[in-house]
Amino acid sequence: MKTTRRDWLRTSASVGASAPFFLVAKPVWGYSVDEVESKLKKEKSISGVTLDDLPTPSLIIDLDGLEGNIAKMANHAQAAPINLRPHGKTHKCPEIALRQIKAGALGLCSASISEGERMADAGVPGILITSESVGVNKISRLVRMTAKHPDTMAVVDNPHNVERLSEAAAAAKVDLNIMIDIDPVGRRTGVQSGEPAMKLAQQVDKLPRLKLRGVHSYSGRSSHVDGFLERKKHSETVMAAPIETFEKMKRNGLPAEIMSGASTGTYNIDSGMRGMTEMQAGSYVFMDVDYRSIGGKNSAVYNDFQASLTVLATVISKNYDDRATLDAGLKAFATDREFGPEVLGLTGVEYRFGGDEHGILTISEPSRPVKLGDKIRLLVPHCDPNVNLYDRAYCVRGENVVEVWPIGARGHV
Amino acid sequence: MKTTRRDWLRTSASVGASAPFFLVAKPVWGYSVDEVESKLKKEKSISGVTLDDLPTPSLIIDLDGLEGNIAKMANHAQAAPINLRPHGKTHKCPEIALRQIKAGALGLCSASISEGERMADAGVPGILITSESVGVNKISRLVRMTAKHPDTMAVVDNPHNVERLSEAAAAAKVDLNIMIDIDPVGRRTGVQSGEPAMKLAQQVDKLPRLKLRGVHSYSGRSSHVDGFLERKKHSETVMAAPIETFEKMKRNGLPAEIMSGASTGTYNIDSGMRGMTEMQAGSYVFMDVDYRSIGGKNSAVYNDFQASLTVLATVISKNYDDRATLDAGLKAFATDREFGPEVLGLTGVEYRFGGDEHGILTISEPSRPVKLGDKIRLLVPHCDPNVNLYDRAYCVRGENVVEVWPIGARGHV
Repeated sequence: MKTTRRDWLRTSASVGASAPFFLVAKPVWGYSVDEVESKLKKEKSISGVTLDDLPTPSLIIDLDGLEGNIAKMANHAQAAPINLRPHGKTHKCPEIALRQIKAGALGLCSASISEGERMADAGVPGILITSESVGVNKISRLVRMTAKHPDTMAVVDNPHNVERLSEAAAAAKVDLNIMIDIDPVGRRTGVQSGEPAMKLAQQVDKLPRLKLRGVHSYSGRSSHVDGFLERKKHSETVMAAPIETFEKMKRNGLPAEIMSGASTGTYNIDSGMRGMTEMQAGSYVFMDVDYRSIGGKNSAVYNDFQASLTVLATVISKNYDDRATLDAGLKAFATDREFGPEVLGLTGVEYRFGGDEHGILTISEPSRPVKLGDKIRLLVPHCDPNVNLYDRAYCVRGENVVEVWPIGARGHV
Repeated sequence: MKTTRRDWLRTSASVGASAPFFLVAKPVWGYSVDEVESKLKKEKSISGVTLDDLPTPSLIIDLDGLEGNIAKMANHAQAAPINLRPHGKTHKCPEIALRQIKAGALGLCSASISEGERMADAGVPGILITSESVGVNKISRLVRMTAKHPDTMAVVDNPHNVERLSEAAAAAKVDLNIMIDIDPVGRRTGVQSGEPAMKLAQQVDKLPRLKLRGVHSYSGRSSHVDGFLERKKHSETVMAAPIETFEKMKRNGLPAEIMSGASTGTYNIDSGMRGMTEMQAGSYVFMDVDYRSIGGKNSAVYNDFQASLTVLATVISKNYDDRATLDAGLKAFATDREFGPEVLGLTGVEYRFGGDEHGILTISEPSRPVKLGDKIRLLVPHCDPNVNLYDRAYCVRGENVVEVWPIGARGHV
């Protein structure tokens, strides 16, 4: 049976202040994080809770937008056709990963073992860990994770690391699925295309407990090239050698079957590349100020996907006509880009950081008055590190909060 | 009875791979976050675990440094004499707050209600919430928190907000302790000194359930002025009016007793100011690249307190002589400053961000060779938002891990 918010407030054993507190003529309420979660556990839904009731700053997911984005990428992959193993480092949220799987994704990429452990334990299949597992801690955890979830895959870019993985796999009698990480550009991780990658693949193929599965090659640089045609040229240029190396592995009889790459910025470029077998785009579920600025195939703003992620803030100080202070600052947003968050649904104002816990709205010609206590929604500058600041996301349809999802792999970097 | 690491590995029911995995001639191990915590719960200590065994990236607290910093500030406050209510937004860690209290602090500042709730529930007394409680959610939670912990204090800067607080307090039959937030400089939050602050104090004093306690006035701008003498001049200039307003409240018979301000940058300046009754410095427990650069009273580097906070990272890719790739990037460090982390214990290298999960070490003339799998410790750029990225801190003495502390109020911004 669903109860209304008012019912719940009347009956809840609130801390300290008891029932009369909620029964004043002018209702004064507000849920703490723990109360929203305990309500959810008891009732499995939240009736009558709107954005106005939430603690701030909070992470908000627009469910219509999220579902639309998941469906659109799934449809694109099916039509291409190409496999989809979306990157979970964007959302770190098992609820979203499971929805991507349900829509047809064959697995999930994870940026680290700890992120992958959380996702696999939540029932997400086919985890590809896209960073090298180096050192005793990561190697032993990879082996144990693969023992528990045999479809786990890891990447390598170094022959010494391959030896260590082989020793650990042999000792534990576990088969490790291995992808050769080829560096398309940027010298961050990955072996060079051609001979170095071939040698590494042959080394892996000879080791009894290592199973060569294919090539991982991700061009982060291509993803944010401004302008669709420039981006297409960049991605085609840098991906040519890794794909050719993958094809050569197959020609030489190596059991390479997967060629994984592509970002949200290049999904409609790389999906058409001959040889590419799967895409690991991630940001498309949420989008952010950064991605929107790179330009789409047919538009100045990249709007192939909807902006479904915002931060909700409250105006906590309003002593001047030309400014308002919000309760969302450096700890509420990713700060790694040169630009800050964008205010939604209100023009003639601009946000800037005002310290760890504060943001300043500079008000010039506001499209509506900005008052003390107002709720403000802001589009985040860069979605991945922004989500990583929050333990939970409040999911809304319109103004109504309908679910609360844990960011289960938050902090598991 | 303490067990050694080896004993524990032999007896632990590890996931998937069982005992033989740990008994190979060349030991291959590594604790996951959950394993370290379960070990701690069972044994109350970690024997034989060193930095090398930890998952990375991880937050590391040097306990000797931390304890020295807590003692030094406590001694300074006692000698001044001035009260100390350190700011908990730096560490968000009840274990540290309780150590500050034990060393003589009379309470703790919290940046938000949610942070304060966590600290008070962990047994930390005298919470002063240093941001305005505006909107139904924050107001109702403040009232409930004060009902549970009557020594909680809140700040106000607006007469409408004072009315709302009064109504909520009356409805709940709870007395709220109120500080007038006076803006020393910066127009972020706070009422202006003089007449506006006096009027607000008089309004508070007349309301039956609001108890005027004093003035809160924090000059974030003074804290980071480079050079001790310039900083002293800045703080004395901007704090003069708030302190004069506080004195006037007392002269006019208002029950103001607390004058709270001061940062880690101004602790040895503001503690000598006539009228100031307590300090809310926070960063001194950890220090960071930013604070060390402001200059000390007698030195170019501000080294009154020790750098006790680092991030531990692993070299996960090493395919070039002139660079190494670490597993610590935008999600492992605060990115709000113009400078990045500083490498400790190794010169001739420089860190730069290399994406969400990666950092790039540029290697020119390294003081020791940098190898695949090496552990690297880095001093964080800005301690407060950096700590807020981690769920736990590993406490070390030298290389040995001796405790793991939850960052209990992480994400409670």
